[in-house]
Amino acid sequence: MEKKELLHEGKAKRIYATEDETLVIQEFKDDATAFDGNKKGSITGKGEINCTISSILFEYLHSYHVPTHYVRRLEGNMMLIKKLDMIPLETVMRNIATGSLVKRLAFPDAKPLDYSIFELYLKNDDLGDPLINEYHAFAMGIARPEEIRSMYRLTAKINAILKSFMERRGLVLVDFKLEFGRDENGDLILGDEISPDTCRIWDRKTHKKLDKDRFRFDMGGVEKAYQEVLDRISNV
Amino acid sequence: MEKKELLHEGKAKRIYATEDETLVIQEFKDDATAFDGNKKGSITGKGEINCTISSILFEYLHSYHVPTHYVRRLEGNMMLIKKLDMIPLETVMRNIATGSLVKRLAFPDAKPLDYSIFELYLKNDDLGDPLINEYHAFAMGIARPEEIRSMYRLTAKINAILKSFMERRGLVLVDFKLEFGRDENGDLILGDEISPDTCRIWDRKTHKKLDKDRFRFDMGGVEKAYQEVLDRISNV
Repeated sequence: MEKKELLHEGKAKRIYATEDETLVIQEFKDDATAFDGNKKGSITGKGEINCTISSILFEYLHSYHVPTHYVRRLEGNMMLIKKLDMIPLETVMRNIATGSLVKRLAFPDAKPLDYSIFELYLKNDDLGDPLINEYHAFAMGIARPEEIRSMYRLTAKINAILKSFMERRGLVLVDFKLEFGRDENGDLILGDEISPDTCRIWDRKTHKKLDKDRFRFDMGGVEKAYQEVLDRISNV
Repeated sequence: MEKKELLHEGKAKRIYATEDETLVIQEFKDDATAFDGNKKGSITGKGEINCTISSILFEYLHSYHVPTHYVRRLEGNMMLIKKLDMIPLETVMRNIATGSLVKRLAFPDAKPLDYSIFELYLKNDDLGDPLINEYHAFAMGIARPEEIRSMYRLTAKINAILKSFMERRGLVLVDFKLEFGRDENGDLILGDEISPDTCRIWDRKTHKKLDKDRFRFDMGGVEKAYQEVLDRISNV
């Protein structure tokens, strides 16, 4: 499958057309951004590592009948995916309080939550990706109530699956972000990626951060942390 | 029923004990605040007007079997109410986009919404009363999922009742904020007040603002606007 014209370029990925109208190529970049794009940098080798991690996790989710856009791994930092009509929302599931829960709502940092927290964000750089709820999304014409309920159910299912997957590999899934789209039948499908760019992942024993927080807060060892996640989840 | 010791003083009201353990007196102040308490002032006569408006609206809601803390009107700016264990949440229902919908989410100002928007806010001055969702409220131990569903259903019912009540009086109910508490049986009851301090109310024809936005944005005629709302809703 060959790359044809560039259809879309985001902060961390490029989407290319292919000869098949229903399929596109997702290319993972080494570029890294944080804080609504205000911090910019590059993490050497990140594109290929995240492409590999995402491929492993999408395949694992397929084994649990979670519908994703993943078709197959291509060489290097590229992945063949189904073309989706992406919904401009981000769903977040949190198992441990950190980040915005601490800043906005004064949760104690690193506190395991008795009940996981599901959040919906509007994907809009100009507005700073604000937290919204299902009524906002519906009133804005972005998604129907039953689609948002499906997004919640899929996010909760993916959380259950990936939490124990990570646990068995000495990792803690702190929180993660997903994006969904609609396929040609209008069915809801998981899109985007699942990687240390979009998940917070800690070492289970030391609580060492193995994700983009190392880049966000200039903690060093970013490449090593991403590689560490790949090494751990490759040991199936 | 006589005022005994002061139990609680908020930005717009004081709560006093009575000889009956299950009842308290709610006294409405002329003090006005806006923007998380950063703007402070006073609106002459507001206390008594809001007490009267709230009494009329609580009585009207009782006729539709909405449970509220209202027992009866006392003299001046005072109301006898059931003592509730207040839940530190604010529910908001919006029929027309304005205020934070415009600022945070870029809705066109004054646009009637095809679908009303329900919101949940954490009542916490230090955190600036942030928008939250039911999962945050549950994880924080503030309210159980079924209580939040009840708060949604009651807020939607109150919206339907008050929207047509206002319409018949040449007013538009743009949006409003409610607070709930639990009675001695643990049942969910509407508390606080319903007034131009907690509702946005416009004249139906001219869209003239008849609420606290006149104070927020120094539009003048604040007292007159509050009196206008009282005059209109007194004509039953």
